[in-house]
Amino acid sequence: MEALKERILKDGTVKPGGVLKVDSFLNHQMDISFINEIGKEFKRRFADNHITKILTIEASGIGIACIAAQYFGVDVVFAKKAKSINLDGEMYCTKIESFTHKKVYDVILAKRFLSPEDHVLIIDDFLANGCALLGLIDIVQKSGATIEGAGIVIEKGFQDGGQKVRDLGIHLESLAIVDSMSDDSLTFR
Amino acid sequence: MEALKERILKDGTVKPGGVLKVDSFLNHQMDISFINEIGKEFKRRFADNHITKILTIEASGIGIACIAAQYFGVDVVFAKKAKSINLDGEMYCTKIESFTHKKVYDVILAKRFLSPEDHVLIIDDFLANGCALLGLIDIVQKSGATIEGAGIVIEKGFQDGGQKVRDLGIHLESLAIVDSMSDDSLTFR
Repeated sequence: MEALKERILKDGTVKPGGVLKVDSFLNHQMDISFINEIGKEFKRRFADNHITKILTIEASGIGIACIAAQYFGVDVVFAKKAKSINLDGEMYCTKIESFTHKKVYDVILAKRFLSPEDHVLIIDDFLANGCALLGLIDIVQKSGATIEGAGIVIEKGFQDGGQKVRDLGIHLESLAIVDSMSDDSLTFR
Repeated sequence: MEALKERILKDGTVKPGGVLKVDSFLNHQMDISFINEIGKEFKRRFADNHITKILTIEASGIGIACIAAQYFGVDVVFAKKAKSINLDGEMYCTKIESFTHKKVYDVILAKRFLSPEDHVLIIDDFLANGCALLGLIDIVQKSGATIEGAGIVIEKGFQDGGQKVRDLGIHLESLAIVDSMSDDSLTFR
C-alpha cells in the first residue's frame, strides 16, 4: 500500500532495538481518516473471502479492526491480555510471549464469541516475531472456526513471524513489509 | 439513548459485585453497526462543541472512540496503561486505581499528542467510581488543552464517579445511566 509506505517514511521513526515508532498515526494517536484507507485496503485484499468476524488483540489492534470491520459488515471480537484469569471453562486461553515487555501473557477469548460456523479475519497493527498472531491463530483453531486470513498493517520482514504464518498456509496480507531499517534508512519489500 | 437501554436489557447480564456485563456488543465482542449509532449520538450531544481531538484509554474505549471520531472528523489519542515506564520527560503521567484488578496503574500519554490548542472530548465505555475518567481529565489539564466534555456509554449512577465529574463543571453525557441493578432487574435514570 503505497500511501502507507509514504506515511511510514514521513512520520515513522526508528528507535534502538529494532523499534519502528508509528505512534503519531497508527497506535497511540490514530489518524482515523487514514485508518479508513487501511480498512478499505484490507477489504480489497480479502474481497474474495467470506468473512463473518474480525478477531484482534488488545490494545492497539482494536481501533484498526473496528474501522476495517465497517467495510466487511461484521462484528469485531478482541482477545484480552488476562490480568487475573478467572477460568470457568467459558474461555479459550493461549499464551503469548511479549519480547517488548519480556513476559508471557495469558490471552483469553470468551468461547461464545467464536464458533465453528465463523470465518475469521485476524487483524493487527504489527507482525514481528509472530507471537501475538500465532496466539490468535491458536484461539481460532481451538474454536473450530475457519481462518480466512490475517491482515497486518506493518510486517517486520527481517523477523520471522511472517514466514512462520505463511508456512502454515495462512493467507497473510501485510500492507507494508519493512525488510531493513536503520537510523537513516528504511527499505520496503 | 433508548436503543442502548433496550440493548442492555436484552443482552446485558448482572454479575455478583455490581458487575454489568455487556461484552456481547460493547467491550469484548463489538457490534460495529450499533457502535456507529453510539458514535452518532455522541456527535448529536456535543454538536455545539468545537472538538479537535478525542481522548480515550486502552483497551475497551479505543474502538468506541475510533468509530465516534468519524462523526467528529478528528483523530483519536489513547492513554496507555504503562507496563514499564520509560519516562523521558516526553510523557504526561497519571495514576489510576483499578478496583476490578485491585491495583494502581501508571497511565501515560505522549506530550506531543495534546497541546494547549486542543479541544478534547473524552470517550469511554464505562463510568463507575470515576478513577479512569478523572485520570484522563488530569492528563488533559496537564497538557493545557480545553476539556469540551466527556461521553460515556454506560454510567453506573449508584457509584459516585458521575457526580465527581459533574461537580468539576465538566459537560458529561452518559448515554445510559443505570441507577440500580440486581439479578432480575435493572433501573435506568
